[in-house]
Amino acid sequence: MNTRMNGAESLLRTLHGAGVDVCFANPGTSEMQFVDALDRTRLMRCVLGLFEGVVTGAADGYSRMAGKPAITLLHLAPGLANAGANMHNAKKARSPMLNLVGDHSVRHLQYDAPLSADVATTAAPFSDWVRTATSAETIAHDAAEGLAAASGKPGRIATLIAPADIGWDEGGVIADPIPAQPARNVDDEALACAIGMLDKDCVVICGGSVLEDCNSMALLKGVADQTGAALMAPTSSRRTERGAGQVHIPRIPYPIDMALESLKPFRKAVLIETRPPVAFFAYPGRPSLILPPDCEIVQLADFDQNGVLAIEAMADALGARRAQVIDAPPPIAPAIGQLTYASLAAAIAAAMPENAIVVDEGITCGRDIYPATTGSAPMSWLSLTGGAIGIGVPLAIGAAIASPDRSVIALQADGSAMYTIQGLWTQARESLNITTVIFANRSYEILKQELYKVGTNPGPDALNMLDLTRPNLDFVSLAHGMGVPGVRVDDAQELYRMIVSAAAQPGPFLIEAVL
Amino acid sequence: MNTRMNGAESLLRTLHGAGVDVCFANPGTSEMQFVDALDRTRLMRCVLGLFEGVVTGAADGYSRMAGKPAITLLHLAPGLANAGANMHNAKKARSPMLNLVGDHSVRHLQYDAPLSADVATTAAPFSDWVRTATSAETIAHDAAEGLAAASGKPGRIATLIAPADIGWDEGGVIADPIPAQPARNVDDEALACAIGMLDKDCVVICGGSVLEDCNSMALLKGVADQTGAALMAPTSSRRTERGAGQVHIPRIPYPIDMALESLKPFRKAVLIETRPPVAFFAYPGRPSLILPPDCEIVQLADFDQNGVLAIEAMADALGARRAQVIDAPPPIAPAIGQLTYASLAAAIAAAMPENAIVVDEGITCGRDIYPATTGSAPMSWLSLTGGAIGIGVPLAIGAAIASPDRSVIALQADGSAMYTIQGLWTQARESLNITTVIFANRSYEILKQELYKVGTNPGPDALNMLDLTRPNLDFVSLAHGMGVPGVRVDDAQELYRMIVSAAAQPGPFLIEAVL
Repeated sequence: MNTRMNGAESLLRTLHGAGVDVCFANPGTSEMQFVDALDRTRLMRCVLGLFEGVVTGAADGYSRMAGKPAITLLHLAPGLANAGANMHNAKKARSPMLNLVGDHSVRHLQYDAPLSADVATTAAPFSDWVRTATSAETIAHDAAEGLAAASGKPGRIATLIAPADIGWDEGGVIADPIPAQPARNVDDEALACAIGMLDKDCVVICGGSVLEDCNSMALLKGVADQTGAALMAPTSSRRTERGAGQVHIPRIPYPIDMALESLKPFRKAVLIETRPPVAFFAYPGRPSLILPPDCEIVQLADFDQNGVLAIEAMADALGARRAQVIDAPPPIAPAIGQLTYASLAAAIAAAMPENAIVVDEGITCGRDIYPATTGSAPMSWLSLTGGAIGIGVPLAIGAAIASPDRSVIALQADGSAMYTIQGLWTQARESLNITTVIFANRSYEILKQELYKVGTNPGPDALNMLDLTRPNLDFVSLAHGMGVPGVRVDDAQELYRMIVSAAAQPGPFLIEAVL
Repeated sequence: MNTRMNGAESLLRTLHGAGVDVCFANPGTSEMQFVDALDRTRLMRCVLGLFEGVVTGAADGYSRMAGKPAITLLHLAPGLANAGANMHNAKKARSPMLNLVGDHSVRHLQYDAPLSADVATTAAPFSDWVRTATSAETIAHDAAEGLAAASGKPGRIATLIAPADIGWDEGGVIADPIPAQPARNVDDEALACAIGMLDKDCVVICGGSVLEDCNSMALLKGVADQTGAALMAPTSSRRTERGAGQVHIPRIPYPIDMALESLKPFRKAVLIETRPPVAFFAYPGRPSLILPPDCEIVQLADFDQNGVLAIEAMADALGARRAQVIDAPPPIAPAIGQLTYASLAAAIAAAMPENAIVVDEGITCGRDIYPATTGSAPMSWLSLTGGAIGIGVPLAIGAAIASPDRSVIALQADGSAMYTIQGLWTQARESLNITTVIFANRSYEILKQELYKVGTNPGPDALNMLDLTRPNLDFVSLAHGMGVPGVRVDDAQELYRMIVSAAAQPGPFLIEAVL
């Protein structure tokens, strides 16, 4: 190892020593010290994104599957802004992420250079931890602290700003890994209270790490079966293990009236790694909080506590065991026929390969698919957690890099796909086994529903802003332009066959499913 | 006119009354009140972008050509973050812009809904004026104030945050237009001092509105001819009127050593609507400020003063008249032959249609084109002002909407094009006469130059992060996927012919020029 090194190299060696070995990057001039150090040390796999939202979305997908952060490399305030929407989604997912963002050299900051802007303020809304490095000697320690902040429970978004000269300066010192803050213990009183509440009037809403742990869900199901309590999961979660052989926990529906209806029966709620559920948006005459107003709520485990341990403690106290899972019937491939929301869901459910990773940015088209896949082969299901569309294409990249032996099936609404469509190029460059199914309903269908929901009667100008026609997007051409082969299908059985075939072959493939 | 109206409608009627008639939009659920009001009132042309960076880049292009702001409609903090990079460029251009950003209803803000994030902090780094509306009665007045703030001298970025319920609530009150702050008078002492400095050791650096005014540049050239002073323009400017019949003012070069060399001869500098020039980045052993350290500097007009009036006053005092322009020889179309940087520039210069608008995001490939077009037909030249790449495709949209009778020629680096490639769809939907020439050198060539400049010897990992090969991007397919026809050319004469033909026809066209 070098005994003399610059700040950038000390930072990379420190992070590598703490287990980081992937860097998702879209660097510029002020990050060339990191590009140079990545090149010389060869300690990390470097994955280039052609847009910053691809980089942070990929980092989120990676950490959801790897259970540890990758780093991202981003360029100044405008580049960080471009990264912001998928930092937002990762923050709401509580995925760990460490962003390295270059800034001008310290002496250059005082001038109004064209790219000067406030990097720390740009980071703030979408980060839990922000720091600006101040010397080559300390930047590696800053990175170790940022990584620890990101890797705690819950996962956090840490952003370290690195002025260019601090990365280039000699005097870098490799820092020891810093342990992340451990999970806070579950409170005995809350445990006793929760146990006392469990009966048929009670719903247990569980999120976070519980949904990632099949054993924990089976144990929780045992508790529920024994007490009569119901189980629910949040509308969107970071990762849910599900499918044949797994406990099925229904999600709180997205549409506000269905959400209210689903929780209406309950007078008591136990929350595990989730908070009282909130509507995506406020609607006239509807509450913001979805649990009934008189519902008694116990927070058994908050985001910074270990829900899996809380469930074990509950089961121990009750003498409950893991439930036997009764599988839903396996899905049947659809017959030849036009694609509808129902036949689309059937085709996907039947085609699901063993041990797939499903990236769900299906929006309106995707809602039928979740229930339809309950009996599909077991899979990891990754959702859009923060509502900022444009996560699907990059999330699939990161998941595929974390899990190279698994097939990724990306369920992708057309309008949302266009926000980070550049990610298809990275899928091609890295030869990732990702099958993207574009749901081409050729509109921002969800917004039309929202507009009708608030009681308006939209005319041509409004519909024009929510339509994606004139011209139709041709996703097969777009994919081809970025080196991803693809086909267009409008038949349900053909869709089924294409997914089976694409998932079995290496490399990315795109299927435009025209509805 | 309605006597009762909601906040959203009062806002739109107020802005329309103050002269705003175009809205660039990428709305979501929390902006449906504006979509509804735009639809009912039909006071504005609504232009949809499939990504927020397209929306703000288009708004910048519009205001550069129209000389007044359009409004943008953006969705919550993540959507605003996506819009940030081109807000940054517009801020550095001092283009006027008024962004309307929806937020959750006031009662919903207290909950951690999936899309909740701090909108005002997201706006801050890229806005000069930020306000959150507080009632339906006052939101229109807030918008009038935001428009006045944006429309002053210099142009500013104003962002008005509109919680959804305030837009839906009845009680909107149309507000009278608020006059923008007028330009601050030029200081008599600075004028006398500047006049006394003008000789062969002096450079006059002029930017902003001076470069938009052919008469003012001709008068300034008369002053320069009479006194022996030299004229220079900033490296990047909002809009420069140039070509045959116009005064040619050379730009300060981008590469630091060439920039230093260009200003080395001068011991005195007069600045008009620009500040002392600063290097894009800090380089080891190079100063941040580009004028010689002992150079005497007079700020004749700052950004908030009128440079055109300052030049008139100088000319009056000196008895100077508008210079006779001696045109550079008209460019000659290149012979058949492989595209090089030189033949690319020659083809574009010769093909330039009369009265074109040139959008310049050519980066490394584009540098030869500016000098090559000095003798081309007169044109408006729009540059990347803030260094945040991804401006070209949307800037062309806005310019074309502001100037429907002119041809737009977009000079577009390939790597930069990918940041906002979604804008091609809007070009097709709006049938805009934009001819995009993609400079396909298939790398972030400028970053390679930056990496060599700092003295490193890049290996495969570094070059991998700066190369756009494996796979090559196929821009003709990408354009086709968004409804824009295109061709690929690698011959200089063919490029010339394709530009002439595309510019003469309505609607967008893309030419991938392979270097």
